[in-house]
Amino acid sequence: MAIPPAPDLPRIVTEIAAEMAAETDRGVVADYIPQLAGVRPDQFGLAVATADGQLIAAGDTGVPFSIQSVSKVFTLALALGRHGNAVWERVGREPSGDPFNSIVQLEHERGRPRNPFINAGAIAVTDAILSQYAPKEALGEILRFIRFLAGDDDIAIDPAVARSEKQTGFRNVALANFMRSYGIVTGQPDKVLGVYFHHCAIAMSVRQLAMAGRFLAFDGRLAPDGRRAVSARMARQINALMLTCGHYDGSGDFAFRVGLPGKSGVGGGILAVAPGRASIGCWSPGLNTIGNSQLASRALERLARRTGWSVFAAR
Amino acid sequence: MAIPPAPDLPRIVTEIAAEMAAETDRGVVADYIPQLAGVRPDQFGLAVATADGQLIAAGDTGVPFSIQSVSKVFTLALALGRHGNAVWERVGREPSGDPFNSIVQLEHERGRPRNPFINAGAIAVTDAILSQYAPKEALGEILRFIRFLAGDDDIAIDPAVARSEKQTGFRNVALANFMRSYGIVTGQPDKVLGVYFHHCAIAMSVRQLAMAGRFLAFDGRLAPDGRRAVSARMARQINALMLTCGHYDGSGDFAFRVGLPGKSGVGGGILAVAPGRASIGCWSPGLNTIGNSQLASRALERLARRTGWSVFAAR
Amino acid sequence: MAIPPAPDLPRIVTEIAAEMAAETDRGVVADYIPQLAGVRPDQFGLAVATADGQLIAAGDTGVPFSIQSVSKVFTLALALGRHGNAVWERVGREPSGDPFNSIVQLEHERGRPRNPFINAGAIAVTDAILSQYAPKEALGEILRFIRFLAGDDDIAIDPAVARSEKQTGFRNVALANFMRSYGIVTGQPDKVLGVYFHHCAIAMSVRQLAMAGRFLAFDGRLAPDGRRAVSARMARQINALMLTCGHYDGSGDFAFRVGLPGKSGVGGGILAVAPGRASIGCWSPGLNTIGNSQLASRALERLARRTGWSVFAAR
Amino acid sequence: MAIPPAPDLPRIVTEIAAEMAAETDRGVVADYIPQLAGVRPDQFGLAVATADGQLIAAGDTGVPFSIQSVSKVFTLALALGRHGNAVWERVGREPSGDPFNSIVQLEHERGRPRNPFINAGAIAVTDAILSQYAPKEALGEILRFIRFLAGDDDIAIDPAVARSEKQTGFRNVALANFMRSYGIVTGQPDKVLGVYFHHCAIAMSVRQLAMAGRFLAFDGRLAPDGRRAVSARMARQINALMLTCGHYDGSGDFAFRVGLPGKSGVGGGILAVAPGRASIGCWSPGLNTIGNSQLASRALERLARRTGWSVFAAR
Repeated sequence: MAIPPAPDLPRIVTEIAAEMAAETDRGVVADYIPQLAGVRPDQFGLAVATADGQLIAAGDTGVPFSIQSVSKVFTLALALGRHGNAVWERVGREPSGDPFNSIVQLEHERGRPRNPFINAGAIAVTDAILSQYAPKEALGEILRFIRFLAGDDDIAIDPAVARSEKQTGFRNVALANFMRSYGIVTGQPDKVLGVYFHHCAIAMSVRQLAMAGRFLAFDGRLAPDGRRAVSARMARQINALMLTCGHYDGSGDFAFRVGLPGKSGVGGGILAVAPGRASIGCWSPGLNTIGNSQLASRALERLARRTGWSVFAAR
Repeated sequence: MAIPPAPDLPRIVTEIAAEMAAETDRGVVADYIPQLAGVRPDQFGLAVATADGQLIAAGDTGVPFSIQSVSKVFTLALALGRHGNAVWERVGREPSGDPFNSIVQLEHERGRPRNPFINAGAIAVTDAILSQYAPKEALGEILRFIRFLAGDDDIAIDPAVARSEKQTGFRNVALANFMRSYGIVTGQPDKVLGVYFHHCAIAMSVRQLAMAGRFLAFDGRLAPDGRRAVSARMARQINALMLTCGHYDGSGDFAFRVGLPGKSGVGGGILAVAPGRASIGCWSPGLNTIGNSQLASRALERLARRTGWSVFAAR
Repeated sequence: MAIPPAPDLPRIVTEIAAEMAAETDRGVVADYIPQLAGVRPDQFGLAVATADGQLIAAGDTGVPFSIQSVSKVFTLALALGRHGNAVWERVGREPSGDPFNSIVQLEHERGRPRNPFINAGAIAVTDAILSQYAPKEALGEILRFIRFLAGDDDIAIDPAVARSEKQTGFRNVALANFMRSYGIVTGQPDKVLGVYFHHCAIAMSVRQLAMAGRFLAFDGRLAPDGRRAVSARMARQINALMLTCGHYDGSGDFAFRVGLPGKSGVGGGILAVAPGRASIGCWSPGLNTIGNSQLASRALERLARRTGWSVFAAR
Repeated sequence: MAIPPAPDLPRIVTEIAAEMAAETDRGVVADYIPQLAGVRPDQFGLAVATADGQLIAAGDTGVPFSIQSVSKVFTLALALGRHGNAVWERVGREPSGDPFNSIVQLEHERGRPRNPFINAGAIAVTDAILSQYAPKEALGEILRFIRFLAGDDDIAIDPAVARSEKQTGFRNVALANFMRSYGIVTGQPDKVLGVYFHHCAIAMSVRQLAMAGRFLAFDGRLAPDGRRAVSARMARQINALMLTCGHYDGSGDFAFRVGLPGKSGVGGGILAVAPGRASIGCWSPGLNTIGNSQLASRALERLARRTGWSVFAAR
């Protein structure tokens, strides 16, 4: 049974949003495509979907942003649901100790990405999904799955972002072709990348993100006693991967400071999970040097401390 | 408030010990020093120190074994207690993506080890302790601290193991001198290594290990309402490090399968922590290819599944 | 003034061809495309173009084979002639210590290939040529240049080889896109690769190859007193690069055993240069584990020893 | 038969020394030990020992400097003379693509250094010598061999340099112990290093260095028709190694610019070899960013150009 949220959760959420509004050192907005570069850095949003069905939010809670790598959580869940442990033949489960787009590790380990949350790993997972679907269908499946998780049919792909990614994503083209040369990616690299760039271009608000992450907080269900999205075991496994690998080469530090499974995206969003308690969406576009949202990381550190939700606490 | 153990915990522990006794594929006993090579591979022990003060154990629960790298948890706690965040100037908090004794990462990151649980990191932590103590005193402090944590004054160093480590530990000599060349290690490498080899040579039974790990399960206290060993925050931070870095290049897999913070040693021991529930000592001398105890890993996976203690579960 | 060949050169060449015909351990023919896989492994050819204008040859001297990476020597000479030292802004001049198609070094050195004779470096050189020409023109230029060097208008591209390379060259696609992401390659990766795959697919016999390499043996001229192809200085520089980098991660060993500048290709060909004495074409399709022709390497070692042509000898 | 020197060699040597005296950008003197840090940066010397027995020199030709890594040429020759090809079981013959004191390559290739001219390789060669001699005897042998090569019994070790190296050489201690852990070094690491530090501390003038290198220029003899030091084949092989590996990660550039086999030391000395023509000693204490003498490199580039001695030229 899940533990109800602290009665002062609304106050904590509001306080944190106010504190973040006052921050002046907000990191640097990603600028490799114009659609991201143009996002105003003074935005911040925090939304918490709790075990008793509430959605407590503050700040820019309704503004859709590009979820980017946060989408990797959803495609992994979809691929595991469809292909089970066969997914792990293509991709490992270990932190990489390298930046998100590193190709070094791939060469040292015969083209097999270390985990599904670095770019190479997520491309390999997308390739697994494509073994069953044509590209358009695959994208439809991914979008349907996220809408189902969030209970929100308005979630959509930003086509301008997808187009820009495609035009500038030379490094991802390199990763896909490199894995293809080892037989880890089996489909046409450009088709796999087409789907990958599009699911990274999904736009969501922190409210939608918090809703979409509930299945990870509640053992695979959309609420403690709600509909099942994945098995309890799979939800726990995905949480484990988020904790060890969810923030690229800052995963250890995020676990150390925040103590919650989480996955960040270069659009400034982070999905964090307090098992049994809540699913949390947080967003601020400025990034730290490792590529994770500076203020969203800070806000989640404070939220975890003030609620005592760290998975490493005795409670 | 900590959650009491499931009433069927004694049955679960007994069952697992019986299952492990029947396993035939037990891994390979470390053989780089005669004292480890001579350990009988058919041994297995499991001990669980619970929130209500019980110690539930089965198998070879009283046999002392060489804790080896498990000692790194205790020296880190001691160093953090003495030097606080200054420890993090010498050593990082990220998984390494490399084997336990790799020197590659050190060269790429100017001699600073990625985390305190790879050999290089633990040597750097030992060096931090030595900035305050002479070698003999430092060893005395470490031993006193572990005895205090376990509430057991019989815990001791195996001098034959320490001597053998010293004679064959060329790779650790390389690591210490390499860090010394970058100024990460500041003391005399041979003195630092003298202390390091000795604290790795501490011998404990699974009972003693489970007792010694209670402070991590109970927010820094020896029991839910007991004496304080470290701050709650520090206990959570050490748990986070154990989860992301505690099993070398198998840390991600351990988190995925077991879902508990843990630290393994090449002697076959693993200390695992179920925050709020229990501290667990497990031991079987045969290792898997990554260098973690094969049966202790398997036993902990079953224990976590049958108790539902994974930190990633909604509970 | 160039030194005339030893009077017994014809005998030496014939002897070596006979010895090689008797070899049973002939290495392994490259099999990544059907056009290479189908080449008969029992073939061997050796041709020596001397300072006095002779062409002394033995074995399968007229059979055209795919020159593959040997083409990198000619494209480098062409690019240096057109762009001079600007070429060195894109590519280095150091041995790589890595296999021919490694991408690791690129990531460590911000996308700049170590030298023009590894795949990445040759792709970058091709991109430099393309800054001045459209793809079709560039290919025409390359072919014209090689025909001029060899004095032979029959040299041509094997279109089936080029097509196959394109279909299977995922790793080269990765390299080109990776360099494009760093701005080292500036053109369209697929256009650059189109030209690259085609110039690697040029077919030549050992006679043609020996003729085409004369400019390197004679300080930039087609004969000691012949037409100039490149400056004397550039010829020496290319020789230096061939000696240090011409055989991938076997360059040191080739220098040690043979003592002549040389460039190998995965089709089994090697162009070697004895400055002032001769240009040498050698071919046998079976490769050693590093990817250089096993018998051609051995034949050149014997040729250098019996003629005393090593550049490291007092003469 | 060796070619006599150009009649204007004395003029060329004098000119170059004058040009170097006027240089203002002289690089940075090594400062890791006080004995090197204290050397005046405005010094330069050049000495050329020719095939007809002359010694043509200019600048600071009699000042002894610490030869450092240049000693690796002499210890390699000694080890090859004693142990033949068995030396190559411990150490490779390929350029490393890494800085001189890198340990990364060692880990990737199971402790076997890439070549005898990086620190690790030279330590392994010293260990080979020690398999036959006690440390003191080994040093005596090395010194006797160099005195014999140079025909000069005044060459000696600078004990203050050796002592300082020992006190600060943590990185070399790391390399030796690392190789010991793989069984590549078989002796006691501290004894091997004792000999290594001492032979690096040999002091020589450019005159002595030019004399000591003659055996490499004249196919293993001290003069074209003189006493034999090593076989012709071995001399050529050592020259090949100097050309591909003699200047650490600047070896390719040195070959490209100078075109002569050479070996540099951190004391600012370079031994270069023009096979059949001359042995050259050059020295200036300021180093470039890669660790090779800035002015000695430049002087040798000019000498090779003005004499036409490049091994890659037609002559």
